[in-house]
Amino acid sequence: MTDSKGYSVTSLAELVVGTVIGDGDILIQRIANLDSADENEIAYVKTEKFFETAKASKASCLIVPREHPEFTKHTLIEVEHPKLAFSLIAATLHPAKKREPSIHSTASIADTADVALTAYLGPGVCVGNYSRVGTATRIEAGAVIGDNVVVGADCVIHPNVVLYDEVTIGDNVILHAGVCIGADGFGYVRDRMGYHKFPKIGTVVIEDEVELGAHTCVDRAALGRTRIGRGTKIDNMVHVGHNCDIGERVVIAAQTGISGSVVIEDDAVIGGQVGFGDHTRVQSGAVIGSKAGILPGKIVRPGVWWGIPVQPLAEYKKMNAHLGRLPQMRDEIRALRQEVEELKKAIEPKNK
Amino acid sequence: MTDSKGYSVTSLAELVVGTVIGDGDILIQRIANLDSADENEIAYVKTEKFFETAKASKASCLIVPREHPEFTKHTLIEVEHPKLAFSLIAATLHPAKKREPSIHSTASIADTADVALTAYLGPGVCVGNYSRVGTATRIEAGAVIGDNVVVGADCVIHPNVVLYDEVTIGDNVILHAGVCIGADGFGYVRDRMGYHKFPKIGTVVIEDEVELGAHTCVDRAALGRTRIGRGTKIDNMVHVGHNCDIGERVVIAAQTGISGSVVIEDDAVIGGQVGFGDHTRVQSGAVIGSKAGILPGKIVRPGVWWGIPVQPLAEYKKMNAHLGRLPQMRDEIRALRQEVEELKKAIEPKNK
Amino acid sequence: MTDSKGYSVTSLAELVVGTVIGDGDILIQRIANLDSADENEIAYVKTEKFFETAKASKASCLIVPREHPEFTKHTLIEVEHPKLAFSLIAATLHPAKKREPSIHSTASIADTADVALTAYLGPGVCVGNYSRVGTATRIEAGAVIGDNVVVGADCVIHPNVVLYDEVTIGDNVILHAGVCIGADGFGYVRDRMGYHKFPKIGTVVIEDEVELGAHTCVDRAALGRTRIGRGTKIDNMVHVGHNCDIGERVVIAAQTGISGSVVIEDDAVIGGQVGFGDHTRVQSGAVIGSKAGILPGKIVRPGVWWGIPVQPLAEYKKMNAHLGRLPQMRDEIRALRQEVEELKKAIEPKNK
Repeated sequence: MTDSKGYSVTSLAELVVGTVIGDGDILIQRIANLDSADENEIAYVKTEKFFETAKASKASCLIVPREHPEFTKHTLIEVEHPKLAFSLIAATLHPAKKREPSIHSTASIADTADVALTAYLGPGVCVGNYSRVGTATRIEAGAVIGDNVVVGADCVIHPNVVLYDEVTIGDNVILHAGVCIGADGFGYVRDRMGYHKFPKIGTVVIEDEVELGAHTCVDRAALGRTRIGRGTKIDNMVHVGHNCDIGERVVIAAQTGISGSVVIEDDAVIGGQVGFGDHTRVQSGAVIGSKAGILPGKIVRPGVWWGIPVQPLAEYKKMNAHLGRLPQMRDEIRALRQEVEELKKAIEPKNK
Repeated sequence: MTDSKGYSVTSLAELVVGTVIGDGDILIQRIANLDSADENEIAYVKTEKFFETAKASKASCLIVPREHPEFTKHTLIEVEHPKLAFSLIAATLHPAKKREPSIHSTASIADTADVALTAYLGPGVCVGNYSRVGTATRIEAGAVIGDNVVVGADCVIHPNVVLYDEVTIGDNVILHAGVCIGADGFGYVRDRMGYHKFPKIGTVVIEDEVELGAHTCVDRAALGRTRIGRGTKIDNMVHVGHNCDIGERVVIAAQTGISGSVVIEDDAVIGGQVGFGDHTRVQSGAVIGSKAGILPGKIVRPGVWWGIPVQPLAEYKKMNAHLGRLPQMRDEIRALRQEVEELKKAIEPKNK
Repeated sequence: MTDSKGYSVTSLAELVVGTVIGDGDILIQRIANLDSADENEIAYVKTEKFFETAKASKASCLIVPREHPEFTKHTLIEVEHPKLAFSLIAATLHPAKKREPSIHSTASIADTADVALTAYLGPGVCVGNYSRVGTATRIEAGAVIGDNVVVGADCVIHPNVVLYDEVTIGDNVILHAGVCIGADGFGYVRDRMGYHKFPKIGTVVIEDEVELGAHTCVDRAALGRTRIGRGTKIDNMVHVGHNCDIGERVVIAAQTGISGSVVIEDDAVIGGQVGFGDHTRVQSGAVIGSKAGILPGKIVRPGVWWGIPVQPLAEYKKMNAHLGRLPQMRDEIRALRQEVEELKKAIEPKNK
């Protein structure tokens, strides 16, 4: 996160296939928000809602959508998708921390471990027997890598991460502090004496480009493997149970809990604090709102889902509208009761 | 989790008091699923639902219930409870990792600590003043044990576990990575200036045979002790507040949160993401569904409970059925309204 | 948590501006509960509900409210607020653990780091480049402090805490085991290829007198800073997303999840397992019950709030009462239907 010496607007525009309007030679050093930006900083304008704020911004350069009003004071980079362009430019202006290849003197590396010469292993890092660490991977202080573990290339393993034995991590994976991969899943068999551990001899596979938030836990499979697919992004303190199969490009927000043997297909989007019963399946195209609850064995089809137990958002809203009308329904029932009584009385005398 | 050289079917059957049908001399090396099993592997058949899959399995041996059809290709072990037998056999075929008794050179052990000669203390492990570590206990890298802590025999303390001062851990306890025992409970007294810490001078007692999932936190008592009873199994990221008393053979799934001074009696079963208000009591025989919420002070009696706030499952289902009928009720009220209006009109002219 | 040699009742009473009734020279060594207290121990009597229990207590001294019946056996300290007085006296009788200023031989301190001479840095502690540790601060084993971090004076950083680069911690802050400050917030931009990381170049500021429970995570801001205000107390496993602004003297119970850019104003009180959508604002004076859910962008005004989605407690209760009456409403609709049918029949023949 060190600041760059600066890139010309022209060079940044090339990165994102943008069109420069104004002075392409201006040097940009940092990204910034529209309202807090200053000289040599670049900000982005998401939609027309922000055009007025943008005009008042002190940023030297603005990333704007193709359709925009005239900006007299600013140099612009026109792109299709300003937020994406801003993210890519940010990665250039503020490159991830680099560490010189080295193994800290307090690290404990098994003789049988195979650590790439270009890897960084920080203070107190442990790497167990027959484990491998790929090229340019950075393992920060206190991370503990068990036996027979594979960590790919260009990974960042933050402090105090724990990888149990036999776990496999792909390339370009980011594991934030305290992530725990491969602990025994939760499964027991009960007899009269109490609970006996159901075997947990499977493993976990984390594919390329995955990012896991701080303290997220992914349990090992009973048999076979628990999988997190390529490009999937998971927030802090998410629990992924044994034998889950999470697809590619799935997004899961913080504190969601996923029971054993759940399947989440590619590109699903899951909110925070969602709870999944075991053996549920979420199909590609499903979006599940925060705090939803999914009963065991349920199949969640494409569409937006909400509530406990989960239902299509439209139905959830309808149900809530109905709930809101309950007092009114009750009043109406009372009125009907009274009118029916009056009708009865009105008819009765004629029957006498 | 290293594979065994192999055990004869006969010897495995003896372990679980099972009856061998077929060739008892076949060597078994690994457990497996019915469908992925191969030669020298053993799988189990839970119920008759799986008989057909079992017949197609390539496993060398099947553990089957006493009542079963003929299996022409397989050697069988007949038992009362196949899943339990499978778990016990798995523990023999795939014994827990063993570590040679040793104290790693980077471990920091207080002079006054009493560590059994047969214990293993991994890299960077700390053991504080006057703390004791029992025979054959294994403490993995980065675990931090405070002062005056007792850890019993045959425990497995996984990496980066933290035991605060004065905590007591029984025998055969498994603490997964990142477990934290004995942090101050959450309690303050407010005055005009802000919050003052209510004292937390109690402790935590974890009894024998307990297993705690990764990142589970058990807070120390204000006064007295927080207790997790013998044989209780707790999943990942569960929060147990100060002064809780969790009984024996209790099961608690992931991400459940238990406020201060909650009592959970022996053999209760608690789902995931459940929330307990303080001073609640769960009686023996209660089963609480995932995501339930229990109001402070509530007593949860034997039976199955569900919902927020928690109610008997039968009532919860009835309520949900009623909710599902709301649109229909509303239509019916509308129809009644119209018919009453018509009745009024039908009667009116006669009254004129 | 070592016991004191003892303080006279008179000296303890002075601490809390209390009035001694009885023998002020008695020595008090420990705090205790009314029912488990023994000689040389002090307990407190919260309200008159506890007067009878108090009379039977074996405590040498009782802290009582100004209005109380006669206690013939006990020495008393009369105060306005017994629980607060008890907390303050506890802090004197059971002072927080002290560590001799020192840096453990296994700690890794960057040459450019500035560590106060009176600080304690335990085994395996790391302090990165240009980071500062204030006077009398205690950093326990395995804590990892990144680069350019500021930790103030008189802090207690428990084992295995992780502070990412550039984070700032005030004075008198307590971070329990496994706390993680400054991990990247959860934010991505999607294109056809998958997700690109939205930049996270901001930081986190934790102000004075804050206490964070075990495993609580506070993410760094995208731009700008995430803030936890002075005197705020947060329980275990709480997630605070990027760019949140949590005010002063806020209380947040365990496992609550706070999405990005949420504002919680001074003195708000938040229960456990609450979920906040992004860009919500909680105003000063708001109290939010456990397990509540707040939709993105919502403003929560002063008062007590409950439910998913959150609503004023009074409305929540009314709604629950309505729900409870659903079976009765349904019966009433059925009865009305029958009576209307009878009315129709009663009228019909006359129309023939």
